Amino acid sequence: MTARIIDFLNTRRPDGPCLVVDLDVVRENFLAFAHALPDTRIFYAVKANPAPEVLRLLASLGSCFDCASVAEIDMALAAGATPDRISFGNTIKKERDIAAAFSRGIALYSVDCEAEVEKVARAAPGMRVFCRILCDGAGAEWPLSRKFGCEPEMAVGVLEHAQSLGLVAYGISFHVGSQQGNTEAWDGALASAAGIFETLAERGIQLSMVNLGGGFPTRYLKEVPGVESYGSSIDQALKRHFGNRIPETIIEPGRGMVGNAGIIKSEVVLISKKSDREDDPRWVYLDIGKFGGLAETMDESIRYPIRTTHDGDVVAPCILAGPTCDSADVLYEKTPYNLPVTLSIGDEVLIEGTGAYTTTYSAVAFNGFEPLASYVI
Amino acid sequence: MTARIIDFLNTRRPDGPCLVVDLDVVRENFLAFAHALPDTRIFYAVKANPAPEVLRLLASLGSCFDCASVAEIDMALAAGATPDRISFGNTIKKERDIAAAFSRGIALYSVDCEAEVEKVARAAPGMRVFCRILCDGAGAEWPLSRKFGCEPEMAVGVLEHAQSLGLVAYGISFHVGSQQGNTEAWDGALASAAGIFETLAERGIQLSMVNLGGGFPTRYLKEVPGVESYGSSIDQALKRHFGNRIPETIIEPGRGMVGNAGIIKSEVVLISKKSDREDDPRWVYLDIGKFGGLAETMDESIRYPIRTTHDGDVVAPCILAGPTCDSADVLYEKTPYNLPVTLSIGDEVLIEGTGAYTTTYSAVAFNGFEPLASYVI
Repeated sequence: MTARIIDFLNTRRPDGPCLVVDLDVVRENFLAFAHALPDTRIFYAVKANPAPEVLRLLASLGSCFDCASVAEIDMALAAGATPDRISFGNTIKKERDIAAAFSRGIALYSVDCEAEVEKVARAAPGMRVFCRILCDGAGAEWPLSRKFGCEPEMAVGVLEHAQSLGLVAYGISFHVGSQQGNTEAWDGALASAAGIFETLAERGIQLSMVNLGGGFPTRYLKEVPGVESYGSSIDQALKRHFGNRIPETIIEPGRGMVGNAGIIKSEVVLISKKSDREDDPRWVYLDIGKFGGLAETMDESIRYPIRTTHDGDVVAPCILAGPTCDSADVLYEKTPYNLPVTLSIGDEVLIEGTGAYTTTYSAVAFNGFEPLASYVI
Repeated sequence: MTARIIDFLNTRRPDGPCLVVDLDVVRENFLAFAHALPDTRIFYAVKANPAPEVLRLLASLGSCFDCASVAEIDMALAAGATPDRISFGNTIKKERDIAAAFSRGIALYSVDCEAEVEKVARAAPGMRVFCRILCDGAGAEWPLSRKFGCEPEMAVGVLEHAQSLGLVAYGISFHVGSQQGNTEAWDGALASAAGIFETLAERGIQLSMVNLGGGFPTRYLKEVPGVESYGSSIDQALKRHFGNRIPETIIEPGRGMVGNAGIIKSEVVLISKKSDREDDPRWVYLDIGKFGGLAETMDESIRYPIRTTHDGDVVAPCILAGPTCDSADVLYEKTPYNLPVTLSIGDEVLIEGTGAYTTTYSAVAFNGFEPLASYVI
């Protein structure tokens, strides 16, 4: 919550749910990352929040950009980033999209299998590739599947294949899982990465870079470690596994860069019970839900802090749900959410920590509701 | 799959994933509903697919429209429906949206608690309300929560309250759960509805209507009963519980009206394994996933039939995933999906039964990907 956001909402009084992002917070986050990891280049994960104002600010601060698609590459270029500051970080790319990125001068590509290497070799000859490896993601709040990356043993062959096809086998990447609360989570993957560096060096291929991915948390209901803790933990792990041959490193913060910069303003549409029984739970319905931007409440993974004008009053648990005619549009039910008993229909609520993974997740028009509006101040 | 859709795809060759909807199938579905339930008015659930062409066709066939928001009401009006053929069927409405609907002449509103009744009484004085009751949803494939409706005992008080505030207590609604495979699922709720009719009659309030909701399935991988079976089962249940005083009835098909009218054309972006082990599962990545329109694969609820140009070849299980940089964007993993072993990167696949709940669920720009394109032919 920032004074600028409060002031904006009080002055502008936008109708309907909206996200307000405070660029001052984004700037502070960028500088904190740069300070905590001084030898690491920052590739902002554009997918977290691709608002042009956010991208322009970060470009001006010297950030690089991790892009998931050609559209995101074009957004980063439009924001002022040069192609050498952009990676095509999605391991799942159409060959014609790789060609489009190559034509824009993008030199750094993510792969996790030989088939993807072959696409890059054909469509972006001579460019750099890094291979994503699986890592277990323990400690992360947003579920990590085996969707991206290969087992470390396989990465050796993938990068050898890249080199044999004229690409530059440039490095290793991994992702410790989004909203990662354990500052030590990077250690195991860095051990694997160091092993791959060594094996490939024995075969005459010198890797240059480790992409440490994202995972840096934002504060929701629970305290999270500060970015300095992550920086020193990663620094120690790098020294532990790479000794005095520390590679070039990059990070890809998304949530950690913009999560706490945004607040969603919402409204209580209805409060009701399902029966006249005293112990029947209270349902609170907001004008934003799973399909309006709060997709990360899926499986109740991310629990956002919610402020109301009745904070300080007695609270009681409720089931929190969105406004659409979809039974699945329930935010918190398995673990009910405590809200003031004095909360009323029409009250405004502020959902904190919503700067990342909200606007772009928003459904285009489900139930006829507009996608989440966004103001960047 | 229809010849017209195949012909459209072969002729137009649209780039990127897209939905193609065949209006001939929508027409057939409407006529089948009208035939199976001749005494029932059809309120198409606009949220299932609000394409203007679909709405115009249905309006011309005499359909009514179940709308979830003012935007959907405006779409139905623009398609040629008169206000008397439109219901505001969302139980969660802002009072100013009720006022907007009232100003457009909408006379029929859904409620499930006294607070909502009070909003309607203030913003749409004198209009008709129906109260939604909970029903258990056993047999449905898309999860049904307790989000909508109240227990039948409470509905009596809700409707009495409506009548006392000058509204017309018009009827009862319920929803047996989306993609309901059990043709008998309406029986229990109709018994409850008849009880409420009786109780209110004793108190001098004559209800007129039962809204039988949706739930009519479309065919995915499994056979589903025909609409005639639902019609006769509902007809018998109505007679069983209402005797010779059968109320006015309406249905709200969405999936059943448009599901099988649409096909999504997609492309295989990548096929890979995570290790060199022989038994490691194959991953198949499409250019559409959970955030591009296939949201109903959430919890692997809806399993779409997928056609490939290799159908007939030997199949093997695979994990099917979408193209975004999100670990949660996996379609089928707990129960892997059988696809031909000869399937290759770049192959086109056709996802059947995708006419409902796809375009509007699509994220606005997640990962920079465009929302699902739609062609109605």
